[in-house]
Amino acid sequence: MKKISVCLSPELIHLFDLTDKTVVVVDILRATSCMVAGFANGVNRIQPVASLEECRALKVDGYITAAERGGQKVEGFDLGNSPFDYMASSVRDNKIAVTTTNGTLAITRSVGASNVLIGAFLNISAVANKLQELAQDVVIHCAGWKGSVNAEDSLFAGALINHLGERFIPETDDAKIAHSLFRQHKNDMLSFVKGASHAQRLEKFGILKDIKFCLQMDKYTVVPFLEGTELRL
Amino acid sequence: MKKISVCLSPELIHLFDLTDKTVVVVDILRATSCMVAGFANGVNRIQPVASLEECRALKVDGYITAAERGGQKVEGFDLGNSPFDYMASSVRDNKIAVTTTNGTLAITRSVGASNVLIGAFLNISAVANKLQELAQDVVIHCAGWKGSVNAEDSLFAGALINHLGERFIPETDDAKIAHSLFRQHKNDMLSFVKGASHAQRLEKFGILKDIKFCLQMDKYTVVPFLEGTELRL
Repeated sequence: MKKISVCLSPELIHLFDLTDKTVVVVDILRATSCMVAGFANGVNRIQPVASLEECRALKVDGYITAAERGGQKVEGFDLGNSPFDYMASSVRDNKIAVTTTNGTLAITRSVGASNVLIGAFLNISAVANKLQELAQDVVIHCAGWKGSVNAEDSLFAGALINHLGERFIPETDDAKIAHSLFRQHKNDMLSFVKGASHAQRLEKFGILKDIKFCLQMDKYTVVPFLEGTELRL
Repeated sequence: MKKISVCLSPELIHLFDLTDKTVVVVDILRATSCMVAGFANGVNRIQPVASLEECRALKVDGYITAAERGGQKVEGFDLGNSPFDYMASSVRDNKIAVTTTNGTLAITRSVGASNVLIGAFLNISAVANKLQELAQDVVIHCAGWKGSVNAEDSLFAGALINHLGERFIPETDDAKIAHSLFRQHKNDMLSFVKGASHAQRLEKFGILKDIKFCLQMDKYTVVPFLEGTELRL
């Protein structure tokens, strides 16, 4: 029997011992949804970086650059943070350097775990299968919003617990709260997430289309993982 | 219309601007439940302190001393962290110095707010009435367990949001999650909390009686608040 716990914000990750564990990083709106969509559409590798400067600098090494701050694409970069950007034919067989407000930080802070996987509703069953195969204790690491807990990542954590079933026990109260949240909202995820603060922030930018896309379950079967500092399949 | 947000752990309180706000500190199992029970039973003042040493030192100033670490009473102090300790006739008209694992930290980190109130299920309606009267934006500050989010404090946050009704809008996703949690478990709070990690920790010490006591709603009408560094009515 394996244990599953949920870290609701990167600001709490220091409370978790990641040794010999598999971490699933999730930033539903939209970094990890983008990454999953990108790999499913032929992206080769993704290099997450903390700053705009680091991201820009990787251009000379042949990276396509993607940057988001405060929910919007940053001027001067190739891509923003819409999953549709990551599905363009131009990204196929290419490598992307990416910096976002929340998702890249959650990835960086997950270093120390045995395995770091990229999760989203888009690949939830594939992630659950991979976790069964790896048979380690699991920490679901929610990227949140600038340190704050958010609705959609917490909901995903609950959904993944639900998918994992009885071989994984929700260990911490965070896991029980997330599981409870998913059970209550599984039939109205869009309305719950649309009422949440980050989705409202994004809706101002007219990207309800992105939100709907990111809430689709099992559109893809890829499970990107961290190797060194890069994500790959 | 006032806003209500929930800080699920003292490790996240730096993300909240407390200026001109009322903070409700909650540590259901058991610090704030003890404090409410104590004041309702005639305690005069309560001085929360961070360390065992500070607590011990206040004995010479006429304080009754109360100390808990890891869920258990600390040897050499007058009281532990059971609400029944705070209802003894010996505490009436006396002042108590207290140090606990989580609750006292949450109180200390709430300094900077306009008002800091002590909340528990035991006085939930009285707290809600006081918040209506103060008419400020509210932050519910959950003490959690050693920095981690816990079930019972989150459940209380949701219950208080429910009590406040339409004049207070759940502002942050944390608030929406807590509210959702309460609505799902309001009819089975004891079983949800008993399944939670801290309650299981406490049950090992044979204090199910304390847990049941702390989940009672509206047993008291007192609302302790912070003045300087001390709690009083």
